[in-house]
This record gives sequence, C-alpha cells and structure tokens, in this order.
Amino acid sequence: MKKPITALQKAINKHVVVRLKSDIEYKGKMCNIDPYMNLILIDAEEYNKNNLLANYGKVVIRGNNVLFIRIVEDL
Amino acid sequence: MKKPITALQKAINKHVVVRLKSDIEYKGKMCNIDPYMNLILIDAEEYNKNNLLANYGKVVIRGNNVLFIRIVEDL
Amino acid sequence: MKKPITALQKAINKHVVVRLKSDIEYKGKMCNIDPYMNLILIDAEEYNKNNLLANYGKVVIRGNNVLFIRIVEDL
Amino acid sequence: MKKPITALQKAINKHVVVRLKSDIEYKGKMCNIDPYMNLILIDAEEYNKNNLLANYGKVVIRGNNVLFIRIVEDL
Amino acid sequence: MKKPITALQKAINKHVVVRLKSDIEYKGKMCNIDPYMNLILIDAEEYNKNNLLANYGKVVIRGNNVLFIRIVEDL
Amino acid sequence: MKKPITALQKAINKHVVVRLKSDIEYKGKMCNIDPYMNLILIDAEEYNKNNLLANYGKVVIRGNNVLFIRIVEDL
Amino acid sequence: MKKPITALQKAINKHVVVRLKSDIEYKGKMCNIDPYMNLILIDAEEYNKNNLLANYGKVVIRGNNVLFIRIVEDL
Repeated sequence: MKKPITALQKAINKHVVVRLKSDIEYKGKMCNIDPYMNLILIDAEEYNKNNLLANYGKVVIRGNNVLFIRIVEDL
Repeated sequence: MKKPITALQKAINKHVVVRLKSDIEYKGKMCNIDPYMNLILIDAEEYNKNNLLANYGKVVIRGNNVLFIRIVEDL
Repeated sequence: MKKPITALQKAINKHVVVRLKSDIEYKGKMCNIDPYMNLILIDAEEYNKNNLLANYGKVVIRGNNVLFIRIVEDL
Repeated sequence: MKKPITALQKAINKHVVVRLKSDIEYKGKMCNIDPYMNLILIDAEEYNKNNLLANYGKVVIRGNNVLFIRIVEDL
Repeated sequence: MKKPITALQKAINKHVVVRLKSDIEYKGKMCNIDPYMNLILIDAEEYNKNNLLANYGKVVIRGNNVLFIRIVEDL
Repeated sequence: MKKPITALQKAINKHVVVRLKSDIEYKGKMCNIDPYMNLILIDAEEYNKNNLLANYGKVVIRGNNVLFIRIVEDL
Repeated sequence: MKKPITALQKAINKHVVVRLKSDIEYKGKMCNIDPYMNLILIDAEEYNKNNLLANYGKVVIRGNNVLFIRIVEDL
C-alpha cells in the first residue's frame, strides 16, 4: 500500500471530495496535487452538508485548509 | 518500546480510531501513514460521539488535524 | 496537467477570485504569485457573499490567509 | 537537571497525565515520546475535569495538541 | 511584474494600508518590510472600519498577523 | 543584557510565573528550559486569576502554549 | 531605513509598548529582543485598553504572541 502523498498523486484525474476544516466540501476531478496537499479541482462543486452552494470551473485549494480527501473512484 | 511514529507504522493494516481536533472520529483500517501523521483509512466510518454519520470507501486524512490515533488491535 | 503552484504561476495576468479563510473574497487581475501563495491583485474588488464592500487599486495578500484561488479565465 | 525533552524521555514507562489544549486529560503509562512530544500511552484513561470519559488500550497522541505533561512518579 | 515580496520592497517609503486578520487597519508610511512581512510604519493611524482609534509614531507589525497590504501610491 | 532565550536559561532554578495563552498561570521553580520555551516546573501551582486550582509535583509545559514567563527572583 | 528586526534591535533599552494578539498591552523598557520577536521587558506594566492590570519586574514575552511593537522613544 502506498504512502498517503503517493496515493494522492496516483489519484490524479480521479474524482474526489475534499473536506475543509470549515466543513465545506468541494467535489470535482483532481487534476494535480503536491506534497503540501495544495490541489487543483476542475468542474468543482461546493457543498455545505449536501446543499450545493456553487459551481466553479477550476479552483486551486491551499493544502493547509484540508481536513481529508476522499477518493471516489478506486485507487 | 518503539517511538510513536514507528509504532504507528507498525500498526499499518490494523484497525484504528482517529480522533480529530474537531472531536469527529474516523474508524477504519489504516493502510498507510507518514511521519506527519497523514494517513489512509479504508472502509472508514465517521462518528460524532458514537453517532455514525457516514461511510467512506477510502479517505486520506491530513495529519495536522489529528488529536490522537487509537490502535484497536494490539501492536 | 501542471502542479498547483505552477498552474497558479501560469495564471498570472488572468482574472481570479481569491477566497480567504474569513470567507471574504477578492476579485481582480493577479499580477504575480509566489510558492507560498502571497499574491498581487490589481483593480481588486472585495466581496462578502456577493456584496461589494470596496475597490482597491493594488493589494498584496499574504498567502497563509488563502482558502482557494479560482481562475476565471481558462489556464 | 535535564533539558525538557530529555527529562520526558527519562520518564518513559512512568505514569503521566497529559493535558491537551482542549483541557481534556489522558492518564496512563507513557511508553514512548519523541522530541515533538508525540507520545504513546497505554491503559489510558480520558478525563474531563475529573470525570472519567473513557478507557483506551493504547493511544498515540499528536504532540502539537499537548499543553503539559505531568509526571506522576519521580524522575 | 515583480514577485509579491519584491513589489512590497519596491513600495518602501510609500503610503500603505495594512489590514490585519483581526480586521484592524493601520495606515502610514512603510519604512521597511522583510520577506516575512514584518514591517515598520511611521505616522501610523489605527482604524476599525473607518473609525480612527489611535495615532502612533512608529510601530513594527509582526508579519504573521497581516491579511493584506494595500499600496496607496502607485508602484 | 542577554538575549531572551539566554536570559531564560540563566534563570534556571529561579521561581517563575508562566502565563499561557489560555490565561492560566503556573508558578514554580523552573528546572530547565529549551530554546522553544519547553520548560520543566517543580512544585508547580496552577492559578486562574489568582485562584489556586491545583498543585503539581513536576510538569513539563510545551513551549508553544507560553504567552510570557515572569522571573520572580532577579536575573 | 533599517529592516524591521534590525530596527527593533536598535531600540534595545528604549521604552516600548507591546500589543499582543489578545489585545493586552505591555509597556516597559525593552532589554533585548531576538529575530523571532521573543523579548525581555523590565518594569513592565500590563494594560487592557488603558486600564492598568498589573506591574511586573521582568517578563520574557514569547514572540509568536506579538501583534506589534510601538517604540515610544525615537529610533
């Protein structure tokens, strides 16, 4: 089994759910991620407890805000 | 007795409970962990004070959110 | 697909929306950004949930306050 | 008199009380600790102002949550 | 266009508005700034949402409190 | 006059009052301190605004919680 | 004009007002300061919005709590 950062980098181009410390979630395709967990999402949807708040084309999330990243497709 | 990070790496593939600073807990099988305590859980269950909130296939938790990790099976 | 910091540096001179941890947003043209996500915006507008609060000629935002950066024009 | 981290490492296998920033306390036998104050407790008891909340077999506490460590047995 | 820290150092001796994370603002002439955004203001005025709170001759602001720095005169 | 960390190390074996960010104070004899301000207190008393809360034999306080250290005896 | 840390070190033995993130202020003679803004004050007075709370002989303030340092005498 791969190390956490390696596993995330293997998940590039998969769909993920990124939960932030503020409890807001972003769902989308993860185009890239670095070891600090800075990451790029495309076709991102912003959710607050299952309520869709907004759609964004492309966002870069700063890694220090991340609580967890859920990989929707299998690694 | 092993150092804390070494002990966690010996617990790979064991069941753990990860308590976050927000008091939310994640229970599952720990597939990998790095020295920063970034970790991968599979078959993860999310709990808030014994109430099951959600089931996740595979999540990567960012280490800086961790309060403690409880190892359910013996080291 | 480029790494997150590289993608941001490719977005120099594009319009961006910078969401801070405080939920305030700054919209403007991103003139420069460094790996810590310190960035320069010109013709910046400050918004609180779609309410325009102020216009600024040129601001330098300290990177550790950033939640995400949305690139309005395509990379 | 030893430096703080050295003194803690001399206290391995002694009973300690670990107070976290959240005011929750963990009492148990400290099996190991590293310079960041990541530590392993066995037979850990969790207290909130003298109320026993739970018993844990073995927990690894992330050092950055620690407020202080009280050594119950003499160094 | 210069990098953010370089642009700030080019703005030495210009008038700036420094917004802190606490939302308090300091206006004055920026005499110097380092890469951490520690900075010296002279003839500083302290504002809370446009209400003048105090005047200070010379203050050194610790960079980690800074939200943004607005350069009033052109770079 | 000595640098702050040097001055603290010269105060080893003196009585100090350690105020934490939480406003709780610990009074006792400082047996050792490192450059991060991790420190060992013996015969420690815990106060909340002049109310004695508890007595501890020996505690190791993690430096990042410290607001200030007051040296009761002269340096 | 000197860099911020150099300017603070030139202000050793001058009177300063140190405002902390908690809004509490400490006034006194600054005997020494290091690059992290750890500093020693003697004859320190503690204020909460112009109300004198306490007098301290000598305190060492941990730099990460500092919001700003105001130099009362000229540099």
